[in-house]
Amino acid sequence: MANASFEVLEEGQVTAPKGFRAGGLHCGLKKTERHDLGVILCEVPASAAAVYTTNLFQAAPLKITRESLAQGGTLRAVVVNSGNANACTGQQGEEDARKMRSAMAAALGVSEHEVAVGSTGVIGELLPMEKVLNGIERLPAVISPNGSDDFCQAILTTDLVKKTASSKVLVDGKEVIISGAAKGSGMIHPNMATMLGFMTTDAQIESSVLQSLLREVTNVTFNMITVDGDTSTNDMLVAMASGLAGNNPLTPQHPDWQAFADAFRYVAEVLAKAIARDGEGATKLVEVRVTGAPTTDGARAIAKTIMGSSLVKTALFGADANWGRIIACVGRAGVQVSTEKVDIAVGDFKVLEQSAPVPFDDDAACEYLKVADLVHIQVDLNDGPGSAVAWGCDLTYEYVRINAAYRT
Amino acid sequence: MANASFEVLEEGQVTAPKGFRAGGLHCGLKKTERHDLGVILCEVPASAAAVYTTNLFQAAPLKITRESLAQGGTLRAVVVNSGNANACTGQQGEEDARKMRSAMAAALGVSEHEVAVGSTGVIGELLPMEKVLNGIERLPAVISPNGSDDFCQAILTTDLVKKTASSKVLVDGKEVIISGAAKGSGMIHPNMATMLGFMTTDAQIESSVLQSLLREVTNVTFNMITVDGDTSTNDMLVAMASGLAGNNPLTPQHPDWQAFADAFRYVAEVLAKAIARDGEGATKLVEVRVTGAPTTDGARAIAKTIMGSSLVKTALFGADANWGRIIACVGRAGVQVSTEKVDIAVGDFKVLEQSAPVPFDDDAACEYLKVADLVHIQVDLNDGPGSAVAWGCDLTYEYVRINAAYRT
Repeated sequence: MANASFEVLEEGQVTAPKGFRAGGLHCGLKKTERHDLGVILCEVPASAAAVYTTNLFQAAPLKITRESLAQGGTLRAVVVNSGNANACTGQQGEEDARKMRSAMAAALGVSEHEVAVGSTGVIGELLPMEKVLNGIERLPAVISPNGSDDFCQAILTTDLVKKTASSKVLVDGKEVIISGAAKGSGMIHPNMATMLGFMTTDAQIESSVLQSLLREVTNVTFNMITVDGDTSTNDMLVAMASGLAGNNPLTPQHPDWQAFADAFRYVAEVLAKAIARDGEGATKLVEVRVTGAPTTDGARAIAKTIMGSSLVKTALFGADANWGRIIACVGRAGVQVSTEKVDIAVGDFKVLEQSAPVPFDDDAACEYLKVADLVHIQVDLNDGPGSAVAWGCDLTYEYVRINAAYRT
Repeated sequence: MANASFEVLEEGQVTAPKGFRAGGLHCGLKKTERHDLGVILCEVPASAAAVYTTNLFQAAPLKITRESLAQGGTLRAVVVNSGNANACTGQQGEEDARKMRSAMAAALGVSEHEVAVGSTGVIGELLPMEKVLNGIERLPAVISPNGSDDFCQAILTTDLVKKTASSKVLVDGKEVIISGAAKGSGMIHPNMATMLGFMTTDAQIESSVLQSLLREVTNVTFNMITVDGDTSTNDMLVAMASGLAGNNPLTPQHPDWQAFADAFRYVAEVLAKAIARDGEGATKLVEVRVTGAPTTDGARAIAKTIMGSSLVKTALFGADANWGRIIACVGRAGVQVSTEKVDIAVGDFKVLEQSAPVPFDDDAACEYLKVADLVHIQVDLNDGPGSAVAWGCDLTYEYVRINAAYRT
């Protein structure tokens, strides 16, 4: 979806927007010597926004981050650990998250309410606070303009690759950079996947405007990916805007708003797709596009039902253009659609037209599914203006292996 | 749930209730010489009831069966084929299902509206009607009081075992027998799982009363199992009551109603659990019991969310008492519950109490999960009177293998 209104930057450094530095180190939460504690620092108070998991059992750091943001809407830093989710840890967990925040604030010389906290890893175990606090004390020394990679390493669990993206857009003739980093599904002990995302920009934009944009963009990017249908207790996406690009404050009325919003969405979409592609055990990224639905919500529900179906996902792993499983998802998604007008295509292969099977070259379709790195599924309901896109991955032996491994 | 009010019969023959005969044969829909066409016949018009899939794309046979039942509420016969679902086959499929019905009616000398039709197998392919009609002509000759096994074989696809159950209960001092047969998740080509169920009884009970009971019982049995979260286009459960036991008509006011309803539910529950246990690739049956929910519907939603979670199911395959995944399901089930009062037990191991982790013997719990043939998960929300039980199975390499196999 890159287009002429903005530019894509090759290296997705969260420190690329003016005002941001970052760092990461190993404090002892991961067994091996990999980074497990990281921080993004903004040299000025950044307008900030965040969205959180809808799971009722929200982990302690999310509560503390909410408190921070409620107190003024600006952030100077976000500190994140991997290796322990600090979830389902009760009162002690909340105190620990609060201690992480106050220690980070003290170490950086900023106010507590200007620090956000994130965690990912095993559930139900208390944080080894001595290690964490010792690490936080050492963090300021490793913060640098080149610290993006260290930060990105620190937020990973068993993700196979780092996930970053950057875009550049002109606002009032000033160069504005938008960057992001995310982690997806992985674990140290077998545990639930957690999605954490961090976006930085040097645009000048008020916290409330950033919050609206973040929510809107999340709905069509991060909220449209599914790896296994489970919603983590720790999912969180935080955005920070330093304002140092020097543009006039961005609002939907600003002449460059659409270009900025597109560039912002681009970064979020790249990160979301990267998470889906790196889903546990995945061999391919899958994009499901639903058009012609009665409503946008209906299109979203159908796209996510298809992308979440174990039967569809195993068929894709097996390179099987099994449209019967796809149409069955359309029928059980809880959306009233005409059952007589459905078109389905897998890649360039039309397999169903007006709800009737279309003869297609099964071998060629199988070959497409085998070699395609990005598989396209298109469903046109021919029943209204609603459309949506969802992303996910196939369901493989490796997924079972990863998630069935004994916790030892 | 067997209890003193009724007796369990060892052999679950659908022909055990007075008035029923059955049969099955190979007509050529399955590639190997296994039965693929079967019939249950009642010597008198049987009060009948049925429930159908909620999938919008209902297969043709379901539509024809609906039509039959709408015309008087009695059935003499139900004819079923495996190997082809006759789903997503458009107008031709509907005509084919109608032809199956009229041919079966003619062959048995009964009215068309006294015949129900069921199909299971691959989606989107037209029935080879010559084979089917030829088989239907030969069916009457194989119908016998001992034909239950042949019928049960005929409805299977890749199910590993036949699924039958019978119970006996006294109504007005008369012996009433209730029997059932079902098929679960399996396929010929890789395709979606289909649940078909057939229940027979010699009780005297009106069609409308039987329908209410069937719906009520389905809600706590067949509708509480999940293998992969996908809802087939062909699911159907048909019940037939010959009335030949000679009891007074059964209604909820009848003094023996509860005993009959319990015996009826017993058969449905055994079949439902058998389907879950024989889920594709399953190594164990899992029972999730949720208590203390604000409402019954809430308990049902939570129980099914836990049982449907790929992360919970892979953990069970891996013999991992990973309660973090269970509580995350509670939190994402869409039910408002208190997050502070949750108790969770895996087998006899208490792992969470009042939402706080309880130290437990991890090795012993792992051993329990490894050897248990039926795994119990209990979740008490301590937040109301609602309770529910769901059944399912683990998610294994074999599930992926079965469903990823190329369609060749």
